[in-house]
Amino acid sequence: MTKTIAFVLYPGITVLDLVGPLQVLSAFAEFDPSYRVAVVAQGLSVLGTDTPLKVAPSHTFDQIPEPFALIVPGGGPPAFAALGNEPLLDWVRRAARTAEVVGSVCTGSFILGAAGLLEGRRATSHWGVRRLLAKFGATPVAERWVEDGPVLTAAGVSAGIDMALRLVERLAGEETARSVQLFIEYDPQPPLGPIDWAAADLSSFEPHSKAMLETGLADQPEMLARLMN
Amino acid sequence: MTKTIAFVLYPGITVLDLVGPLQVLSAFAEFDPSYRVAVVAQGLSVLGTDTPLKVAPSHTFDQIPEPFALIVPGGGPPAFAALGNEPLLDWVRRAARTAEVVGSVCTGSFILGAAGLLEGRRATSHWGVRRLLAKFGATPVAERWVEDGPVLTAAGVSAGIDMALRLVERLAGEETARSVQLFIEYDPQPPLGPIDWAAADLSSFEPHSKAMLETGLADQPEMLARLMN
Repeated sequence: MTKTIAFVLYPGITVLDLVGPLQVLSAFAEFDPSYRVAVVAQGLSVLGTDTPLKVAPSHTFDQIPEPFALIVPGGGPPAFAALGNEPLLDWVRRAARTAEVVGSVCTGSFILGAAGLLEGRRATSHWGVRRLLAKFGATPVAERWVEDGPVLTAAGVSAGIDMALRLVERLAGEETARSVQLFIEYDPQPPLGPIDWAAADLSSFEPHSKAMLETGLADQPEMLARLMN
Repeated sequence: MTKTIAFVLYPGITVLDLVGPLQVLSAFAEFDPSYRVAVVAQGLSVLGTDTPLKVAPSHTFDQIPEPFALIVPGGGPPAFAALGNEPLLDWVRRAARTAEVVGSVCTGSFILGAAGLLEGRRATSHWGVRRLLAKFGATPVAERWVEDGPVLTAAGVSAGIDMALRLVERLAGEETARSVQLFIEYDPQPPLGPIDWAAADLSSFEPHSKAMLETGLADQPEMLARLMN
C-alpha cells in the first residue's frame, strides 16, 4: 500500500516551512512510488500565508485519516492561533496514533506540543521561541533537526529542507537522499556565510516574540499564561 | 513610492523555486517598508504546481505593469510549455523594460531567454539544462547565482534562497541581509554535506532532461528544434 506523507495546512502559515520539505519529499516520491505526498487541511478552500501567495490543499483531513507521516509547518501569530484550532489538533492527535513519523518545522512544534505529542521528547523550533517548548513537557534542543522516536522536529523556517533530506535518508538510504539533493540542487551557499550565532543580536527578537504570542493567543488567555509565565 | 518585487506565477511551477526567494523577500519587506512583494499571474485563479500544493497569486499582470523587480520561477515540462505562453512572455518583456532587477530561478531563466532578455548576458539555470541557455544568446555559467546588469539568475530550485539573500544585500546592505537570514534561520546543514559534483552521476539526468523538453515543448516544434539541435 502506498504510504502517504501528509503536510498539514492551516491559515497564515510561513510558506517556506511547508514548501521546503514538501519539495524534498515530492521529489522523493518520484524516485520511490511506494510513497506519495498530500497536503491536507480541514476543507479545500484557498488559505492565506505569511506572504502574498495563497495556497490550497489537495485533500481534507477526513480523506487522509491514517497517514504514514505528518508534517506540521509553523508561522508567526497564526501558528499560535492554531493552538486553539480544535479540528486541526484533533486530526493531528488521531493521525499521530498510527503515523511512523510525526514532524514539524519551526513553530509547528508548538502545535505538536498543544496536541500532547511532545511530553518527554527532545524537540526543537525557531530559535526565538524554542525554550518555550518546555511548557509542553519537551526538552528544547538547539539543533537543526531533532529525532526522538517518531517525533522529528526542525528549527526555524528553512531548516525543514535539511530535516526532510534526513527523513529521505532514513526511509530510503543515502543514495536516494543524494539523488533528491542533486535534483533540487541543494548545495547551499548563503552569500554572507552561515549564521554567526555568537555575533547575532538574538535579544532584539524578544519583543517580536512576545508580540507574536500575544497576538496569536489573544483568544486563548490560558495558553498565553502557560507560555508566558 | 513603494517598490514592488513581483514573483511570476504560471501553471505547474516547481513551488520551491517560487517560495524560497518569496519568503526571503517578504521578510525583507517587513524590515524595509519601502518594498512590497506581490505574486502576479495572468488571472487570479488557483494553479497547480509540481507538488500536490495548489497556489494562487495576489495580483494580475495588468495590476502590476511596472514592478521594481520581477522574478520568474522554473519547473519541469510546464516551464518549457510556458515558452509558448504569450501573455506571460509579453508581461515579462514589458516589465523588464523598466525593472531594475530581472530575475529567475532554475529553468525560469529559459522564460527570460524566450523573452529575449538573455542576449549577450551571463546566466545560469538548473545544472541539467544550463548549457542550453546558449541557444538564447547567453553565456551559461556554473555558479549558484549570476548577476549581469539587471539580470539575476539562480541555479536549480533551492538556489533561489541564496540569490534572494544576495539581492537583499544589494538593495539594503549586509546588516539587513543578516537579519533576514537569522529570521528565516537559514543556517543550512545538508545531512549528507554539500553536493559532491565530482562524484555525482550527472549523465543519468540526460534522458530525464530530454523527456522534459519533449513533453514541455510538444506544441512548440520550432522551439524544441532550437533547443535540441
